[in-house]
Parts: sequence; C-alpha cells; structure tokens
Amino acid sequence: MLGGMQDWPLRIMRLLDHAEREHGQREIVSRWSAGGETRTNWAGIARDSRRLANALERLGLRRGDRVATLAMNHSRHLVSWYGTIGMGAIIHTINPRLFDEQLAYIANHAEDRVLFYDAAFAPVVERLKPQLATVEHYVCFDPVAGDGFEELLAGQSENYRWVEGDEREPAMLCYTSGTTGSPKGVLYEHRSTVLHAMAEVQPDVFGLSRRAVAMPIVPMFHAAAWGLPFAAPIAGCKVVFTADYQPKTIYDLMHQEGVTHTAAVPTVWLGMMQYVDANGGDFGKLELLTIGGSAAPPAMIEYFMKRDVQVSHAWGMTEMSPIGTSGGLPHDWEEMSWEDRLDLTAKQGRAPFGVELRVIDEQGNPRPCDGQSSGRLQARGPWVIHQYFKEEQKAVDEEGWFDTGDVAVIHPDGTMQITDRAKDVIKSGGEWISSIELENAAVGCPGVAEAAAVGVHHPKWDERPLLLVVKKPGSDVTPEAILQHLSNQVAKWWLPDEILFVESLPHTATGKLLKTALREQYKTHKLPSAA
Amino acid sequence: MLGGMQDWPLRIMRLLDHAEREHGQREIVSRWSAGGETRTNWAGIARDSRRLANALERLGLRRGDRVATLAMNHSRHLVSWYGTIGMGAIIHTINPRLFDEQLAYIANHAEDRVLFYDAAFAPVVERLKPQLATVEHYVCFDPVAGDGFEELLAGQSENYRWVEGDEREPAMLCYTSGTTGSPKGVLYEHRSTVLHAMAEVQPDVFGLSRRAVAMPIVPMFHAAAWGLPFAAPIAGCKVVFTADYQPKTIYDLMHQEGVTHTAAVPTVWLGMMQYVDANGGDFGKLELLTIGGSAAPPAMIEYFMKRDVQVSHAWGMTEMSPIGTSGGLPHDWEEMSWEDRLDLTAKQGRAPFGVELRVIDEQGNPRPCDGQSSGRLQARGPWVIHQYFKEEQKAVDEEGWFDTGDVAVIHPDGTMQITDRAKDVIKSGGEWISSIELENAAVGCPGVAEAAAVGVHHPKWDERPLLLVVKKPGSDVTPEAILQHLSNQVAKWWLPDEILFVESLPHTATGKLLKTALREQYKTHKLPSAA
Repeated sequence: MLGGMQDWPLRIMRLLDHAEREHGQREIVSRWSAGGETRTNWAGIARDSRRLANALERLGLRRGDRVATLAMNHSRHLVSWYGTIGMGAIIHTINPRLFDEQLAYIANHAEDRVLFYDAAFAPVVERLKPQLATVEHYVCFDPVAGDGFEELLAGQSENYRWVEGDEREPAMLCYTSGTTGSPKGVLYEHRSTVLHAMAEVQPDVFGLSRRAVAMPIVPMFHAAAWGLPFAAPIAGCKVVFTADYQPKTIYDLMHQEGVTHTAAVPTVWLGMMQYVDANGGDFGKLELLTIGGSAAPPAMIEYFMKRDVQVSHAWGMTEMSPIGTSGGLPHDWEEMSWEDRLDLTAKQGRAPFGVELRVIDEQGNPRPCDGQSSGRLQARGPWVIHQYFKEEQKAVDEEGWFDTGDVAVIHPDGTMQITDRAKDVIKSGGEWISSIELENAAVGCPGVAEAAAVGVHHPKWDERPLLLVVKKPGSDVTPEAILQHLSNQVAKWWLPDEILFVESLPHTATGKLLKTALREQYKTHKLPSAA
Repeated sequence: MLGGMQDWPLRIMRLLDHAEREHGQREIVSRWSAGGETRTNWAGIARDSRRLANALERLGLRRGDRVATLAMNHSRHLVSWYGTIGMGAIIHTINPRLFDEQLAYIANHAEDRVLFYDAAFAPVVERLKPQLATVEHYVCFDPVAGDGFEELLAGQSENYRWVEGDEREPAMLCYTSGTTGSPKGVLYEHRSTVLHAMAEVQPDVFGLSRRAVAMPIVPMFHAAAWGLPFAAPIAGCKVVFTADYQPKTIYDLMHQEGVTHTAAVPTVWLGMMQYVDANGGDFGKLELLTIGGSAAPPAMIEYFMKRDVQVSHAWGMTEMSPIGTSGGLPHDWEEMSWEDRLDLTAKQGRAPFGVELRVIDEQGNPRPCDGQSSGRLQARGPWVIHQYFKEEQKAVDEEGWFDTGDVAVIHPDGTMQITDRAKDVIKSGGEWISSIELENAAVGCPGVAEAAAVGVHHPKWDERPLLLVVKKPGSDVTPEAILQHLSNQVAKWWLPDEILFVESLPHTATGKLLKTALREQYKTHKLPSAA
C-alpha cells in the first residue's frame, strides 16, 4: 500500500522555478575578474537558463551529455548550470587550478561536449584544445572581443519546458582533486542535490532566509560552491558572486551589497583579517561566516567571534555534496565560557539530518562517541557518494558506509572533530599521532609561518614524526624553541624526533599541504633517533 | 543513467534516529491535564518507541494496520506515533472534539485495531466502545488506576530494528473535520512527512535550530500539530508539550521552560492576551509566534509585534500536511512603515520550496499574481494530497492541482492572501463579496464580539450579505453604528443588506464558524431589500 500524497519528483529545476515564482526580483550581483559589476535577479537567471537550454538543444546536446565549465563565480556561470541541467544534460565544473594533464584527463574522462570558460582561462583552453578529444564547442563567458556566451543566447526563445524525469538522474559532475591517483568523478543527482540544498538552508547549517545576502567566496568548481547556488533559490536570498578574490574587492562588495552570509576556505579569511588590520574597517552586516575546506586556526575563529560574527566551522568533501557537518550554536552557548566557545567552534560541528557519521577502529568496529576514541570516519546519507563515475566498484562497504579517509573523534554531544587524514596519521608503536595537531601546535609558536608533520620510517617505532617548518620572515626561531612550545601542547611521545627548516612547502591545487610529495621526499630520511 | 549517490529512503524513523544520535539529551517536557510535569529526552522517546514497537508486534499488529489516538499533547502520545510508525503500522490521530457519530464513523472507516486515549477522554471511549467494530485493544495513556500505556511498555525490550520499506508507504492518517459530508482521511507518507519536516525547520517557516525551545499549542490531532513533532527532531530542539490550554498554564510553561517558538490558533492567543493584560507580565524568551488555523485579527498581530515577538501568519490544511504558506520577514522589513508591516503580516505569507500555488478563475484559467485577481486557490507539491483514503477518485485535476476550497489573491511579491472560503463567498450580481473581510471589519466595531456574514438569496442580485452579530456583554451597539463603521472599510456594494443580533453563533469542533448551519437556517430568510 502506498500513501495518498502527490508524486512530485525532487528535480533541480524546481529550485529555480520556485525562486522565479516566489522571489523573482531578488538580485544576483556579479563582480567580474576584469572589474565592473552586472546585476540580474532570479527571474533573469531563469529566463536566461531557458534560452541556454534552447541553445544547447540547437547545438545537438542530448540528455545525459556533459557540459563543462572552467570558470570563476558569476551569473553566467550560474545560468550555464541551470540551463544545462534544465535540458537534461550534466553540468561538469572543472577546477582551473589543476595541472594541464589533469585538466585534459578530466575533460576526456567526462567526455565533455561543450566547454564554457572565462576569458581569464583562455590561455589554458588554447593549450589544452589539441588534447581535448570530445569537446565540440568552446564558448567564452566574457570574451574581450568576438562572440561568446551572450551571443549564444541571443535570439533564443525564452520559452522552454524543463526536461522531466526520475529524481535519481544525474545532474552534475565534480572530480575530486585527490592527492593520489587519477581524479575521480562524483555524479550528483537531482534528488541528492535538492535534499542537500533543503538541509543547507536550515538555521544550524547556512541559515538562509529570504532576507539573507549570501556571498559564496568558495569557487563554483569547488564542490558546487558548497551547494550555495542550489540552496539560495530555496530561501530566495540575494546572491553576490565575485570572480576576484582580492581582499579589497571582497571587503568593498561586503559593504556595498550588505552581505550577511559568506563561506570560504581559511586562506581567504587570513587575507581579509590582514586587510582589515592594515586598513581599519569592519565586516558590515556580516552575521555568519562559514569556514571549511581545511581546519581554521583558533586565532582566526577568535578574530571573528570578537567582532560579533558567528563562525561556523564546517566539514565536508566533494563526495558528500559537500556538507557533512556544520557548526550551529549549541543550546547552552550563552552559559559557556569564552574558552569553551572557542574550543567548540574549532571542532567541526554536528551532522545535519541526512548525514550519518561513525568512527571505526582498524577492525571495522564502531567506536564510542566519547570524544576520545579516534578512528576512521565513515558517512552515509542521500547526498553521500555510492559509486564514482565510470568506476566498476562501489565506493561504499556492504553496509553502505563511505570511508571519508579522515580520522576523527565524535564527542558525546555529537560534535565531530577531525584529527587527521587517515593517510597522514603517524603510526608510532601501534598508536596514532595526529599530524594535523602537531602542525597546529607548531603554527602557534612565535616565528613559525607554516609547518608540516610527516611520519618517517623508524626501525623501532615503525614511524616517528619529522616536522618541517617554514619560518616567518626575519624570525630566528630555533628547533629547541619549537620543541619547548610543543611540549606544553601535546603528549611527550608525540614530540617530533627532528625539526627541519625549509624555504617552502608543496601544496595541492586547492591549497592543501601536499603530504604525498613530502613523504616521497623524506622516505629515506634518517632521523637522528634511528641512528 | 542514474547518478552516483546513495539510496537512503526518506523514512520517518530516520528523523528520530537523528535526534537520538545527535541530540539525545535535549529535553521533552510534558505538562499533564491532571497537573504535574514529566521530563524525558529524544533518547528516551526513541527508547520507549522501540519498546512500544515490540509491544504492538506482541499484540499482533501488522504492517499497514491502523493505531488510533484520542489524546492531547504529551510525550507518551509522541511515543505512540514513533513506535507505531517504527513497526510499520499507521498512526491515526482522532480529534476528540468531534461528535460521537463522527468519532465512530472515523474509527470504523479507518479500521483502527488499537486505540490509545487520555484519561480525560475515558467517558467518550466508554460511550463509543459498542460502536467501534474493529478496535481490539484500548490503552489509556494516563490511567487514574489500573494498567495503561506504561504497563504496556513494561518489560518490553529496548532493542528493535525499525521496519524499512518504500518511502512512499503510508505512515499517518488524519481525517479532515469538514463542514459538509463525511470526514475524509488524508494518508501521509514517510516521504511527504520527511520533506515537509525539512521545509519546516528553515528560517522562513518555523526557523527551528537546536537552540530553539518549541511549544506546539496546536493539538497533535490537528494536522499532526502542524508537523512540529516531525520537524523538532531534525533541529534537535527542546519540545514542551501541554495537555492543558489554560492561559496561566501556558504562561507559566513559557517562562519556566524558556519557550522561544510556539504555534496555535488565534483563540489561544486571544486568551493569552487577556491573561497578560489582566495579570501583567511578558512573553519571556518568545521569538516567533506562528498563528494559523484561521485568520488572525490585525489587533492580535500588532499586540505581539509591539512586544518584539515576530508573528508568522501561516496558512495550510490537513490535505497539505499542513503547511502551505508562512510569514517569514521580507528582505526590506527594516525599511517598511509600521502600517505596511502590519498589512503584510495580516496576509498569509509565501509558499516555501515544495509548495506551488495558483489562483484560477471560474473557467479554470490561471489568474495573474497582481494582488487584485481573486480566484480559487490550488496547490501542488510532495506533501499535498493526491487521493483521500479509500476514495476511488483522485483529489486532484488532470494537471495534478488540488483545489483548496479557499478563495485568494496572490500579490506580486508572492504573498498569498486568503479572501474567503469558496463556499462562503457571497455572489452578488456576478461579483464576489468576501464574507471573511466583512466579518473582520465588523469585529473591529466597538461592541461587536463576533460576526458572521452569509449570502442570502436575493431576486435581483442572486445573493446579498446578511450579517449576524453577537454583541459584547453590556454593549448597546446598533445596526446603524455597525453599518457606519463598515462603510469606512469596505466597498459600498459590499455593505450587508441586513444586520441581525443573535445570542451566539455555531462553530465546528475545531472552532471555526459553521457557515453551513447558518446558510441552512437563513435559507428562506427574506431580506428587507428583497421585498
């Protein structure tokens, strides 16, 4: 027996239909990388998406085909998403910061038929063209001269009936910029995206109402700008896009447009903090700052908390659409001490409804949520990956759990705390040392600009920590001073066996420490303790 | 081609699993009708629901069977919902305020096998027993003596694996207390309920975070307490139930428990206003007051707005799970005048994502959203009815639209405004006169306690308005004074042809004016103008 309610598939285009119908006049602002702003609204996005759907059909695109973008955040990029999805094709955002061979691999693996790109990436596109086997049409979003995206839309009818179908059909393709192996594609569905967006608007995640002015500073090629372009139409909020990440640009947009909600990786906020410290000023109407992508240093959290900006430390990954946890305030926030608030905000928050999390030991047994028992973090839910694009094997175990590759503890109140990446954890005498905790502690030492902890082979302990440190300019910090500092923060057996100063550390295209390269480089390094 | 994300059916029990896992210690408070309070938490609700699921299986209940309740709001009632749904059966809330023959009809039509009831309704149950053909087990939630609900749970295992299945399976049955014909059952599904709950927590609907303390004063038999018992576990908020609706009890609970969010029909708020006016005091931590069930008088909205309590005027119906619209603040609220804010709040708000609304003319053509064009209000969406329980015919037209029976206009900003019930509208000379607007205007006249406007046959105009008025005690208001008052508020041709004073007006079991009875009573009434 089935129930008596309506059949209303969770299709992404219903998000845009809702925004057009209920919030059509709410603005979408775009700051272009070449400077200057343009303004449209949800009705305009919907109208242009229908024109693009017609244009793509005219180009011969069919249901399920892939349409790629190589672009920063702006309204035309948004139109390319909804127009592509609306005609039944799959939008494939490519990270322009990847190396050429990765870009070519991804576009060929996805079999992209169209590539929309920013003028800023035209040189990349020119270099890549000979290698892109399947791309038939190249369209520039903002050409300096000649035809581009607007010319593709010109003359197209504003009438189009979105392609309907099963809510489990794919709508979007995002490749993970893994640190090992070939990039792998995550194929988001209409259903997964709509449910994720519904979860995101709730108060304890992004808290988007129609009064909000949201500025995603996270790029649209980075896990769909954390889903904000799909959550915003549910709320009917105003959206501010910027293709330019200069602190001054972000600062000016925030004030000019009255931004209340924003989200970005810690690097962006570091730049903003430096800018405001140097130039004075405040954060205007900003209410909620979501920090994700990598762990935010406590000093950053405190900086914004002191300025009455709520900080939500979120955690997720491309394989999770990406939201896994978020840092809404607990019910006893008012009664907490400043230190307890900082401590809690530095952790990764709690899972919203729709995400199940657990940590397991090396035998695969669930560990207690006691804030002590660390283990591999696993996830389940309607917006968590089941299978990578074109892969034969499932990405989950027999019980449907996806292994995130993170090591974490879960506290009794449900707060999750990432302690390390599973592959970065340092295995010393059968116990685990968190490389991230060592690095965070080292960065708190005066004179230390950046630090990386890697496990190096040790004849007795299997692995022992080696700490690589980049000094701040002009600093004369010594290994002894760093060890002294660390000894107040971590267990004695966690202390690195050696500290080496280096000029710089390698990073991935998305700004994370490239530990694989470091491990490779120091594979045969002899620790003094191993002598 | 399907996408690569997980299969995770939207089953109601996942709401409770989430609350137990992430917010297990958050309290559930119950104030009993006999006085006294009990406290449990989400973990306790989940544990008792598993015990009840075991108990129901022991009683021989099977998947799809119906379990009825005749009860006010309290934690045991909540356990009866989740325990029943968890073992695959259907929870059927019955409105104890209905007449005996309606109660018997409903229980027999639903083929309820178990009836859980409050001690306060024991006399009703005793009277009904001989007529209830299918009920095998009667269990009192709070017996004064003898075995009851707790004894049913006693000794049952706390381990139970919720019955899994299709997300379109039925989970709950609610009959509409229609003013005509037999009551009809609306069969909510797992999917419809979960999506409705996800929509409800968003800022512009109930805005529930884990910090919230929600007190649904709307009864659990009234469209599932507007869905709050399903939305609360998503947020992980504290819930305060009361089986006693005395203003003093509500007032004391609000302050004692720190209630931030509450929802009820206007009658409850009238009582609260009178109580606070008579005794002094304030509304404590109350942030958001949701008013629904029938239209709130502007004076009530202003009363709470002046006390810094946000008022959300919501509209819905049992057939819509029930939320159709809600009154979140618009983005330009700060710039609006006090009068404009009042005007806007008095309307019914906007549709959340998941509800499509339109108004149509008498030929079925959609009318523009211009704030002027009134017509029959239709709805579509995943939590809108498709077919009544055991009915052969669909409840929707060929395009899937459900006719709400309301007459409304939609404003350019998406705000919906109910102008009348379709069957109550007064059709004069081919034009429509809103009976509700006449009544609201009349109630604003000093000395008028309550008013009902009904259309009475007229030889020239087809129908003309007759206004029935209940005077306030001691008032000497005259028909002339009322007409004078009305003439400043409505068009001249809307003015009633006759005003009659009556001792009282008939109401439905849920407190709405029983217009059918009035139309019947005055069917052959001769208006002076018809002479």
